Amino acid sequence: MIELEQVKEQIKNYVIEIADSRSLELLDLLATGKMLRSKLVLKIAGVTDESIKLCAVIEMIHASSLLHDDVIDEADTRRGSPSINALFDNKTAIMFGDILYSKAFTQLTTMPSDIAYNISNAVTLLSVGEMLDVDLSKDFNNSYDKYLDMIYKKTSSLIEASAKSAASLSGKNQDVFALYGKNLGIAFQMIDDILDITQDSATLGKPAMLDFVEGKVTIPYLLMWERLDSSDKLKLEGLYKKPLDEDELKWIKDNMNSTKALQDSMILASKFGTEAIEVIKDEDNEELKNIMKSMIERSF
Amino acid sequence: MIELEQVKEQIKNYVIEIADSRSLELLDLLATGKMLRSKLVLKIAGVTDESIKLCAVIEMIHASSLLHDDVIDEADTRRGSPSINALFDNKTAIMFGDILYSKAFTQLTTMPSDIAYNISNAVTLLSVGEMLDVDLSKDFNNSYDKYLDMIYKKTSSLIEASAKSAASLSGKNQDVFALYGKNLGIAFQMIDDILDITQDSATLGKPAMLDFVEGKVTIPYLLMWERLDSSDKLKLEGLYKKPLDEDELKWIKDNMNSTKALQDSMILASKFGTEAIEVIKDEDNEELKNIMKSMIERSF
Repeated sequence: MIELEQVKEQIKNYVIEIADSRSLELLDLLATGKMLRSKLVLKIAGVTDESIKLCAVIEMIHASSLLHDDVIDEADTRRGSPSINALFDNKTAIMFGDILYSKAFTQLTTMPSDIAYNISNAVTLLSVGEMLDVDLSKDFNNSYDKYLDMIYKKTSSLIEASAKSAASLSGKNQDVFALYGKNLGIAFQMIDDILDITQDSATLGKPAMLDFVEGKVTIPYLLMWERLDSSDKLKLEGLYKKPLDEDELKWIKDNMNSTKALQDSMILASKFGTEAIEVIKDEDNEELKNIMKSMIERSF
Repeated sequence: MIELEQVKEQIKNYVIEIADSRSLELLDLLATGKMLRSKLVLKIAGVTDESIKLCAVIEMIHASSLLHDDVIDEADTRRGSPSINALFDNKTAIMFGDILYSKAFTQLTTMPSDIAYNISNAVTLLSVGEMLDVDLSKDFNNSYDKYLDMIYKKTSSLIEASAKSAASLSGKNQDVFALYGKNLGIAFQMIDDILDITQDSATLGKPAMLDFVEGKVTIPYLLMWERLDSSDKLKLEGLYKKPLDEDELKWIKDNMNSTKALQDSMILASKFGTEAIEVIKDEDNEELKNIMKSMIERSF
């Protein structure tokens, strides 16, 4: 899409304004993602100078959070390429994240103040979500409420704020689009959690079935645990945060299927996706429906 | 000072608004510093609800930058207490820094937009300054211009923006107060660099003479290097980034004195301090003079 290229160009111009050659080099090394948030903003608000700038700011914030996430999770790869912390070191990823964050916030201060507030506030939620994620990864978490609160903050809050801000830019109903974004974000994270189990490493661009080893009890594991008998519950808890051999991986996958945990996780994600569409049924929403559908049906 | 207590109370209220119990626990563990930036803002703008809020935001930004700095520098202590990265781990310091940063930016969006812009832009400079500092610590830097540009960005830019924003709040001359803050910030950092050499660990609350071992060629080392003959220049470069024994420490201190590098660093810092005062000579500036003086004459 030509408009996504405009967003990338705007990001580059913002980084040029920082007048730091190292930052510009590092920007070139960042792997570009799917730009879901930009697609969403541009579908809701249309393509204008203002919406392109908003997208650039949101993508810079998203990139910063991933730079810091990769240090926190000690991740070596991001979207199939080496992460900045792996290419250089943790400090480079932390500092470049801080530079992109603060430049994005600086640009936000030149936008309407409700948008500046919504996006910044989402970054606070996102940062708290990261903290909750790490906290929930210490011991086996079997609480669905804690999981849902964490993924709302960590993943959904910025998508919610993006949709709300796009509605504000274009004079549409902000509450309705915020709720669309919120549900879409939750569905998006659940799909991510499912793909970690169903896809291979080559497709994911990172090791497969990594979440559970890293201590993340995602929705399929949560549902599976709920449905196992007490001895199998203990067995699953025993495998938590351990490197798994072939037999153990097979046991997990077999039980994901026999308990229908995987299938029902998919149904739950679709339910959030459908709710997202439901709230904007009175809007001109064909393309927003398509965004939701392509997100649910994606393979990475 | 009662008004500094009000600033601390405001910071606490902002963190309570985040509604994350872990953040509140971590806030209690942060050692409070001298709050130079708050003192400056309150002297310029007076004590009002607005100025107290501005101080809280600036202190939260400063605290965030220190949280990330301590990870980047692998520092175990901060103001005589264990740093958050030492008490817990790097990830906690990164995440808590991100939370405080983003909450501060969120509150900035509720303030006048010129202030929001100035402060956010200073954080970009500050983050670039951190990157330059790390970069200049890779090899022996003998460029005064690079050193000055780095300390301006890393230390002075936020002090400059604080003074400028305080002037904006109170309808004073922004350019004049910005220049005061800029020169004060440069003087402040030079004094810090000098104290690293002249003070003992107990006074500093961190190991003494650490800068040079960490690869930081600060102003006294720069002036000394310029004044040594070629063989002694080589000797100094040979000691760079190494743990130093008693004889080597003594050699450095002796040459700091015989070349007058230490004395002239002090004179240079005072020159920036005096320039700071000079630009505000037409303002009611007695207390701002005192801030500058107490900063130059401090021992830690």
